[in-house]
Formats: sequence, C-alpha cells, structure tokens
Amino acid sequence: MKIELESIGYIENDRRKIKDDNWGSVTSKIILRDSFPAESLAGLEEFSHVEIIFYFHQVQDQKIVRGARYPRNNPDWGKVGIFAQRGKNRPYRIGLTIARVLKREGNELIVQGLDAINGTPVLDIKPVFRQFLPTELVRQPAWVDELMEKYWENT
Amino acid sequence: MKIELESIGYIENDRRKIKDDNWGSVTSKIILRDSFPAESLAGLEEFSHVEIIFYFHQVQDQKIVRGARYPRNNPDWGKVGIFAQRGKNRPYRIGLTIARVLKREGNELIVQGLDAINGTPVLDIKPVFRQFLPTELVRQPAWVDELMEKYWENT
Repeated sequence: MKIELESIGYIENDRRKIKDDNWGSVTSKIILRDSFPAESLAGLEEFSHVEIIFYFHQVQDQKIVRGARYPRNNPDWGKVGIFAQRGKNRPYRIGLTIARVLKREGNELIVQGLDAINGTPVLDIKPVFRQFLPTELVRQPAWVDELMEKYWENT
Repeated sequence: MKIELESIGYIENDRRKIKDDNWGSVTSKIILRDSFPAESLAGLEEFSHVEIIFYFHQVQDQKIVRGARYPRNNPDWGKVGIFAQRGKNRPYRIGLTIARVLKREGNELIVQGLDAINGTPVLDIKPVFRQFLPTELVRQPAWVDELMEKYWENT
C-alpha cells in the first residue's frame, strides 16, 4: 500500500548538523505551512507536552537498514532489529519525539527538547494525553541506558 | 515536500468496526510485509512497550479537518485545533499509540492496547525508551480526562 503524505510544516532551530547527543537545551520553532490555518494549533498551550512526528529528510537511501544492526555502530551492544531501536536510518525515515510546549504564536509552536535538525519536515503534531502514557514500569535493555547517557545533557 | 511511504505491515485483531472506547483488552498482531526480514524485530521482546505509528486508512478525504473542531463533536468541550487533539480525521491520517509488548514470533509482534482496527497499515514500530518519556508532570485540559474516561476500559 503506497501512502502519499506532505509535511505540515518544518522545524527551525540552531542545529545545522546531525549530532547524536546534547539535545536537552535545544529550542525549536515548528512553523506550519500556509495551507494550515493558525487555529489548527489552538489549545496546544493547555498541554505541557506534544508528540512531534517528523521526517529524517537527510538520510540517504543506501543508509536505510531493513534488518538488524548495531545501535550507533557499537558492537558491544550486539545486533538489534531496526524496529527495536529509534535510530534515523530506518525504513520510511519517520522520527518521533515528545517535546515540552513553550509557547504558541500564530502558526508557530515553540518547543524544547526536540531532537531534529533545522529544516526537518514535520508530519504531525499530537498533544500528549496522560492516559496514553505507560501505566506500568517501562522495561528496557541495558544498552539503551548507555546510549542515552548524554542524549539530553545540555551543551 | 511530497513524501512517499509504504506500510511495513498491518494489524490483525478482532476489531472490525471503528469505535471510540474500550480498547484496553484488545490484543493485536502486527504482521510485517515479506520484504522485511524477521530480524528487523529482534530485541523487541526486551522492551515492555512499543510505539506503533499507523495509518487511519478508512478516513475519507471529506472528513479531514485542517483547522479546529469539537473533539468527538462535543460542543461542551469547545473548539480545539486538530493538532491539539488525537482524533483520526487529521491531515495525513497518522495514528500513534504506545502498546504493551506481549510476544514476538517470527515476523509478527503481538501487543496489547493498540487502538486501531483490523487491517490497519503500520508505518513504523519504535521501542519505548524511558528517557523519551516526559520527566515532568504532564498537564492537560479537563476535556481530555472526560474524553478518555472509557477509552481503555475493558468490554
């Protein structure tokens, strides 16, 4: 099944280069395309968090992994299926992150902690509902904690 | 920017009809397409939760809202921008839910609490990392708690 999408807008921030870590202090503007009225964002300021679905537009075809690989090319962590990691070199290049809502201004939403570079196309914005978060303890393998060690650390 | 995707697989469960509530006890199989090797799911059993990005394939063009609307057509809750709600009649029809991992079997992942009907195309699967969940209190407007009251209730 082929699915054709367009971006709803794009991200503006001071991250020009792809980088693994230190995303915590990054503030981003999500600027909607002209074809979306500003009222499509109405009410987002009543939420503390949003989920941003975006498109890793700089990933080249030959980098895409459809099977398993070492997370961050680190053989110490063993090979893991691409759907058991969150890395960008994935089929269809879909990124997804929960960010903090700072402000809404017209057709712009300003957020903190979005791990995407300047110019990244955005596919959707959803408010975080408490009832959609895990209610039980979240279990994950040890390699995730190692990989995430400096991810949100401020620069 | 036009973006062309394909599904990575589809959902199999006993929900044939679109329904707002009672998703808690629904168990779903996510069956990968043949073009994805089973090893693409390797390691998912080490996670308690996954994020499933899917496609609301039954939503008709004329139902799509690009501005604001009443959540669930309930005027008591006031009009809210489509990006400040999680409803299905949204631009590009992207759905997103955190589900519990029950089991992995070959090219199938079995999950609980996925609010999508039988036959829904899946666009991506990502493991839930604890470090990607909100670390602060999640704030949301009162209408969300009313709307979600019976959402996960068992039938």
